[in-house]
Amino acid sequence: MRPHVLINVAISADGKLSTRERRQVKISGRTDFERVDHLKASCDAVMVGIGTVLADDPSLTVKSADLIAERVRSGKPEHPVRIVIDSRGRLPPDAKILHKGLGKRIVAVTESVSPDRISVLSPYADIILAGSRQVDLEILLERLYEAGIRRLMVEGGGTLIWGLFSAGLVDEISTFVGNMIIGGKDAPTLADGEGFVTENHFPRLYLDSVTPLDEGVMIHWKVIK
Amino acid sequence: MRPHVLINVAISADGKLSTRERRQVKISGRTDFERVDHLKASCDAVMVGIGTVLADDPSLTVKSADLIAERVRSGKPEHPVRIVIDSRGRLPPDAKILHKGLGKRIVAVTESVSPDRISVLSPYADIILAGSRQVDLEILLERLYEAGIRRLMVEGGGTLIWGLFSAGLVDEISTFVGNMIIGGKDAPTLADGEGFVTENHFPRLYLDSVTPLDEGVMIHWKVIK
Repeated sequence: MRPHVLINVAISADGKLSTRERRQVKISGRTDFERVDHLKASCDAVMVGIGTVLADDPSLTVKSADLIAERVRSGKPEHPVRIVIDSRGRLPPDAKILHKGLGKRIVAVTESVSPDRISVLSPYADIILAGSRQVDLEILLERLYEAGIRRLMVEGGGTLIWGLFSAGLVDEISTFVGNMIIGGKDAPTLADGEGFVTENHFPRLYLDSVTPLDEGVMIHWKVIK
Repeated sequence: MRPHVLINVAISADGKLSTRERRQVKISGRTDFERVDHLKASCDAVMVGIGTVLADDPSLTVKSADLIAERVRSGKPEHPVRIVIDSRGRLPPDAKILHKGLGKRIVAVTESVSPDRISVLSPYADIILAGSRQVDLEILLERLYEAGIRRLMVEGGGTLIWGLFSAGLVDEISTFVGNMIIGGKDAPTLADGEGFVTENHFPRLYLDSVTPLDEGVMIHWKVIK
């Protein structure tokens, strides 16, 4: 058993998450910001890859005081559990995600990470060991399910999203498509990594809804099993 | 003066034109195929980059007999002028684009191309020399306008599209977003090349329309000047 996995990202009209320098850029607008905050508040956990943490230093907290209050009223912690996929243990101990807002953090690492690095991070987060060189996402998701996580939101980046798709672990994907071209053969895209090479391996999606939003388009896909 | 430039491409839900091996894959369906044929029949010329020719060997002809007949009735040639951007003169003389269907072809090359290579291609196409190492798209478009081309459709690939955007030469862009994930950090995307690094250089788009089509979504953007 694993949690229900929903990916949520904003991409440019040409499918980029950011510039080739990985500098975070404003892709969506206020309405999308509020939609994402609602989505996050509805989840048990939010996950990102280490590349995204190193580039953007996000906190991944719920922003709206009303949504936080609503979570607390219904017996949930203020913020979803925040999870970092960090195969080589590169997470800086002063990363915002480990300090901003109340609640549990999980850092997923591999056997390749030294006990010293783990002891640096363990005051701030639960450490889950899964895989030898790359975090084994299938094993990790089983462990998260056992820990009570049923609904998991993934906010990127492209390498983690690729890893989840290539292991068949995605249920839904929401993409906000922004009204700009970023360009760049080396700019991060929605799904990076190795890539699929034959049609019969492509994950197939079902178009659930498509809506103009802010200056762009919100597309919601469900993954066909 | 330059022609009105409209880009038309099909991308996966993660913004890829094809797999990392550049193998052409079916992204859209029958309805989109007919839409593209109509769009092509409405244009004076269709342009692609050499990478696309080498990977896919397209003919870029209008497919519908009715649309061809309609063009001929209104005094136009059967097919739009077919144009290849080929900075280094790599176009094989047996490429389909030079042989399939009636009508004029143009190959745009640079001063770096040897007279021998040019004489190999010149029986099949008009050769336009523009630029020293990379085809100067601005100069080329002026030349095309002088040759009577008013409405120019661009079918890719990502390097040519990047070149046009970075030179500010795009008026409209239609993207059919297909219901699959291709993935791959090295797979061609809608806009490759160097990429923009700062927000104030991003071409900004105006959302003209968004429509579910086949199993995907058709998004039509206009470039804000």
